[in-house]
Amino acid sequence: MQFSEKDLLRDSAHLSEDQKKVVIIDQTRLPNEEVFLEITELEDMYRAIKSLAVRGAPMIGIFAAYGMYVRALSKAGLEKETFFREMFEEGQYLVSSRPTAVNLSWAVRKMLAELGLHEMEPVAEIVEALRLRSIAIHMENSEMSRRIAEYGLTLVKDGDGILTHCNAGPLACGAYGTATAPVFLGKEKGIRFKVFSDETRPLLQGARLTSYELHKAGIDVTLICDNMASMVMKNGWVQAVFVGCDRVAANGDFANKIGTSGVAILAKHYGIPFYTLGPASTVDMNCASGEDIKIELRDQDEIRTMWYEKPMALEGVKCFNPSFDVTDHSLLTAIVTDRGIVYPPFDVNLKKLFG
Amino acid sequence: MQFSEKDLLRDSAHLSEDQKKVVIIDQTRLPNEEVFLEITELEDMYRAIKSLAVRGAPMIGIFAAYGMYVRALSKAGLEKETFFREMFEEGQYLVSSRPTAVNLSWAVRKMLAELGLHEMEPVAEIVEALRLRSIAIHMENSEMSRRIAEYGLTLVKDGDGILTHCNAGPLACGAYGTATAPVFLGKEKGIRFKVFSDETRPLLQGARLTSYELHKAGIDVTLICDNMASMVMKNGWVQAVFVGCDRVAANGDFANKIGTSGVAILAKHYGIPFYTLGPASTVDMNCASGEDIKIELRDQDEIRTMWYEKPMALEGVKCFNPSFDVTDHSLLTAIVTDRGIVYPPFDVNLKKLFG
Repeated sequence: MQFSEKDLLRDSAHLSEDQKKVVIIDQTRLPNEEVFLEITELEDMYRAIKSLAVRGAPMIGIFAAYGMYVRALSKAGLEKETFFREMFEEGQYLVSSRPTAVNLSWAVRKMLAELGLHEMEPVAEIVEALRLRSIAIHMENSEMSRRIAEYGLTLVKDGDGILTHCNAGPLACGAYGTATAPVFLGKEKGIRFKVFSDETRPLLQGARLTSYELHKAGIDVTLICDNMASMVMKNGWVQAVFVGCDRVAANGDFANKIGTSGVAILAKHYGIPFYTLGPASTVDMNCASGEDIKIELRDQDEIRTMWYEKPMALEGVKCFNPSFDVTDHSLLTAIVTDRGIVYPPFDVNLKKLFG
Repeated sequence: MQFSEKDLLRDSAHLSEDQKKVVIIDQTRLPNEEVFLEITELEDMYRAIKSLAVRGAPMIGIFAAYGMYVRALSKAGLEKETFFREMFEEGQYLVSSRPTAVNLSWAVRKMLAELGLHEMEPVAEIVEALRLRSIAIHMENSEMSRRIAEYGLTLVKDGDGILTHCNAGPLACGAYGTATAPVFLGKEKGIRFKVFSDETRPLLQGARLTSYELHKAGIDVTLICDNMASMVMKNGWVQAVFVGCDRVAANGDFANKIGTSGVAILAKHYGIPFYTLGPASTVDMNCASGEDIKIELRDQDEIRTMWYEKPMALEGVKCFNPSFDVTDHSLLTAIVTDRGIVYPPFDVNLKKLFG
């Protein structure tokens, strides 16, 4: 099955039907309000990324590609030299909205490369090339998601319980998502799963986003606090754990949202298979092991005060707030990518596929 | 070292210095406000228990004992028959404020038994007997806590990192508390620990109470989200886990706040000793194993909306919200009680001490 341009309109960032604006659902206002923003101005694009109105590595990339095209469209009347200068300046500015987002700079670079490729053509034709390139980037992402969904679906069966942590579904990753892609594809095919969504403190992506998008899609989802995963597994309700990944090292160690390593240890204890699902682009063969992955520490007030009506801990109490943890490859049953499923020994088998 | 009546004044529920009122710190307003309530009326006692202004099994017992004495004091002018009738009625009413709180009914029964014991004496002397009995109940609790602290202290050494879950410290248990008792006693003796306090979703007792009372006592405490325990252990920062217990079965399985079993599995994975600490009264030799412990399910809105400025999940999303989980005895290094430390095989050794 091929994706059509119409399919792309369902994603949380997409090109408007008249192909003149970028449309996003404002993820900061979920789950309480579904607000769509139509964006054409550079400053609004910058703010959308910075405020996390658009979030999830793949979705930021798609948004930035469309953003570059929409900016080009607004400059179609400019003299070529000015057009080029402004496009490069705006691209750099956009990247600065979230400097560590790899997909953001990747997408902007990709669009600027397209610009260079058509350097000799009239501005109108360059704009058209950018339109096609941005749609192609989005389309490739959907195909990536679909392949992950299909590979993942071979690992589970109708009626299985699946536990997930954080959010790596359609909102963040487009199409079917990544970690929960098999569940969304299963829904299309009439294969039903019971999903348990960890709320994922402190930012609550599981509550605000994962349980939201599964529930909206008519999928059976139960929201739990992170500390309830052990009991849910002990009760025999979980047949597989599916989580995303932010970076996979050459030995199979991988970084993902804080708490993932704990879920992996519980799964091993209860004999439940544990999978990470992600695009080939998250496999970093230059990174030897998890020890080479630097973990960002975030603001302590995310634990003490964020979301709350009043502070939940004394201001003087120190907090440790890492955004990711590293899961050891020994806890991992397999890595599901759009190039296929990788089983242990991971160092050998990742090299075969990605070396 | 013996406790004096003055020491008892430091506990979160105690008799006022003039011995005419029960004083509590309102735990519902922590950590933001330290509000002390002086209580003499029956209705206020009922409300204090029901609203969780006074909480923690031992503290509820102490509060109820003092409550019964203070009520008796207000009736000292009554004719004996009326005095007896009203005391029994009020005792029953008090117990109904939290029917499942074992220590509440235990303390009320104990005070009514004292009443019966002095049946033949004048009302004034009965009231005096109740005063002495309530203070004795409080004093015995402090001695229990002190013994747990001393036994627990033999299991750790200066500089150790200790991870705890939920709240079983002085606020809930009086004196030094139970789970964190060795830490508070250590502080007195100049033995320093670094404590990691799980925030303990959904009710956040770790954030609101445990990190509060440790910080106020000048103890090094770091607050973490429940899902960060794995990373903290992996970093080598934890030398022992100390948790409380709500009920210990004859085979060593035990119920405690939801999430405890997950912490136990992590500790085992990382090779960290895992202890539960509690008074002899939590050991229930009539309960054969964890399978006999019924787990209370609580309101789903504790996960979706409680504490928050706005809902964090769609109202239609179902939640699973168990208040406790059962930790298998195979994950437990030892049980620390005021009668001594119990090591495996737990079925044999619990029987020796409690059979």
